[in-house]
Amino acid sequence: MSASPVTLRVRVRYAETDQMGVVYYANYLIWFEMGRAEYCRQMGFSYANLESNGFRLMVADAHCRYKAPARYDEVVRIETSIQELKKKTLVFGYKIFNDTTNQLLAQGYTKHVCTDLQGKLVRLPESFMACLLPSSPGAHA
Amino acid sequence: MSASPVTLRVRVRYAETDQMGVVYYANYLIWFEMGRAEYCRQMGFSYANLESNGFRLMVADAHCRYKAPARYDEVVRIETSIQELKKKTLVFGYKIFNDTTNQLLAQGYTKHVCTDLQGKLVRLPESFMACLLPSSPGAHA
Amino acid sequence: MSASPVTLRVRVRYAETDQMGVVYYANYLIWFEMGRAEYCRQMGFSYANLESNGFRLMVADAHCRYKAPARYDEVVRIETSIQELKKKTLVFGYKIFNDTTNQLLAQGYTKHVCTDLQGKLVRLPESFMACLLPSSPGAHA
Amino acid sequence: MSASPVTLRVRVRYAETDQMGVVYYANYLIWFEMGRAEYCRQMGFSYANLESNGFRLMVADAHCRYKAPARYDEVVRIETSIQELKKKTLVFGYKIFNDTTNQLLAQGYTKHVCTDLQGKLVRLPESFMACLLPSSPGAHA
Repeated sequence: MSASPVTLRVRVRYAETDQMGVVYYANYLIWFEMGRAEYCRQMGFSYANLESNGFRLMVADAHCRYKAPARYDEVVRIETSIQELKKKTLVFGYKIFNDTTNQLLAQGYTKHVCTDLQGKLVRLPESFMACLLPSSPGAHA
Repeated sequence: MSASPVTLRVRVRYAETDQMGVVYYANYLIWFEMGRAEYCRQMGFSYANLESNGFRLMVADAHCRYKAPARYDEVVRIETSIQELKKKTLVFGYKIFNDTTNQLLAQGYTKHVCTDLQGKLVRLPESFMACLLPSSPGAHA
Repeated sequence: MSASPVTLRVRVRYAETDQMGVVYYANYLIWFEMGRAEYCRQMGFSYANLESNGFRLMVADAHCRYKAPARYDEVVRIETSIQELKKKTLVFGYKIFNDTTNQLLAQGYTKHVCTDLQGKLVRLPESFMACLLPSSPGAHA
Repeated sequence: MSASPVTLRVRVRYAETDQMGVVYYANYLIWFEMGRAEYCRQMGFSYANLESNGFRLMVADAHCRYKAPARYDEVVRIETSIQELKKKTLVFGYKIFNDTTNQLLAQGYTKHVCTDLQGKLVRLPESFMACLLPSSPGAHA
């Protein structure tokens, strides 16, 4: 849906490994979070801002498929794109690569809904949606 | 597939919350891990043993659907069952409840494959499979 | 200072290990947090309550000495006591044991100050202090 | 002891915050780990290498003093230096700054001992020590 994915590189921390000698599986969801924050940032929209304006982006759904392990000290590349954008839901897609070998390590998505500070479901703010897909014709209509 | 789910209770740690005031979404995957370890333990099979016997249970796939937030100091109940057991793959299913209100907070699954210490895919050890489903007719045939 | 330490047992999670095959060093500070929460709970004072009454217990200082590693699936015993209690500062002391062998794995302390919700330093609430040391003669002098 | 500290910048992750709206205190120890890994890297010595050569740098002691909170999305600057280097022990010192305001957020140290893969205490490898303090006359005496 979005033109090209937004890229973020991150070096694997010792804290992220487990006794199998690879990155513990839950930590990929942290990389996903970093990926979508970077996506927003590069679109000129800080996620921190969204919160200070009274909105929260809750995760409704998360999925990750693990292809190959990431290891300590490697640099992984997180590629984030928007897979779906509706009035009330937003789906980010992610691919995690070993940045040296370009091997695909994992891929997944997170689905989000927007709430106000009381937790009530609301529409995604217009200004946020416009930022997320700046180059799409529809966004400027 | 399994008869009744295996139950584990855990109190939410401060470390598990985020600035939204709820449990950070990646931490549910840690609860899933604790759930399946408890499942194995109650079936008489320690996951630590599986590793010391030269096998590793890799996560191939993880999914979580978030229904309602868990909060600091609450006790959550993790119910783990086996959704699928084949020669080479194993799927655990999980439900996370607020143990006080019985509200369903999240549910999901993890799919696993078995490897040797070199990372090569192997069949699930027979002794492990027999333990996982002790009450199934097939297991006693 | 306090009579006897308050005890909490916790089983080591896979997520808490690192590629050395032992518990990652930062996770001991999470066990410390659980220890002091349990201390408050057993003294009839919920830390969650302290927050909902407009107080926050900030960590000013943390120290841990590591004696021997904790490993996956082991049960560790966290013993928490109060080392110092003044009008504006509070020091908890911790000892972490392997609950099976009784080997001391680590010990440390955390020093806390109390703030209001705006982050301004305030005295520890009287009701909180009275709870923390209910049985000590000094506390009632 | 070392000439100038080695610098690493890192953006605060959502996962690192807690319900107080600030970075959870144990996560500073993860930043310390990243700081000393970066220190070794800039001295031409990969910590991953140290492990693959049969050595492990165990943490014997960790201390952190917290001055001011770090918050989501801020960039923090980790400055790492060597405070002490003996035949059998090594002390890294750390300062954490808000990279925008230059406010000192925390400072601390970690003390390390070296072991072989069986966990036996050994001297720090000569090649490692030489790398850590390449420009100091004492290191070549």
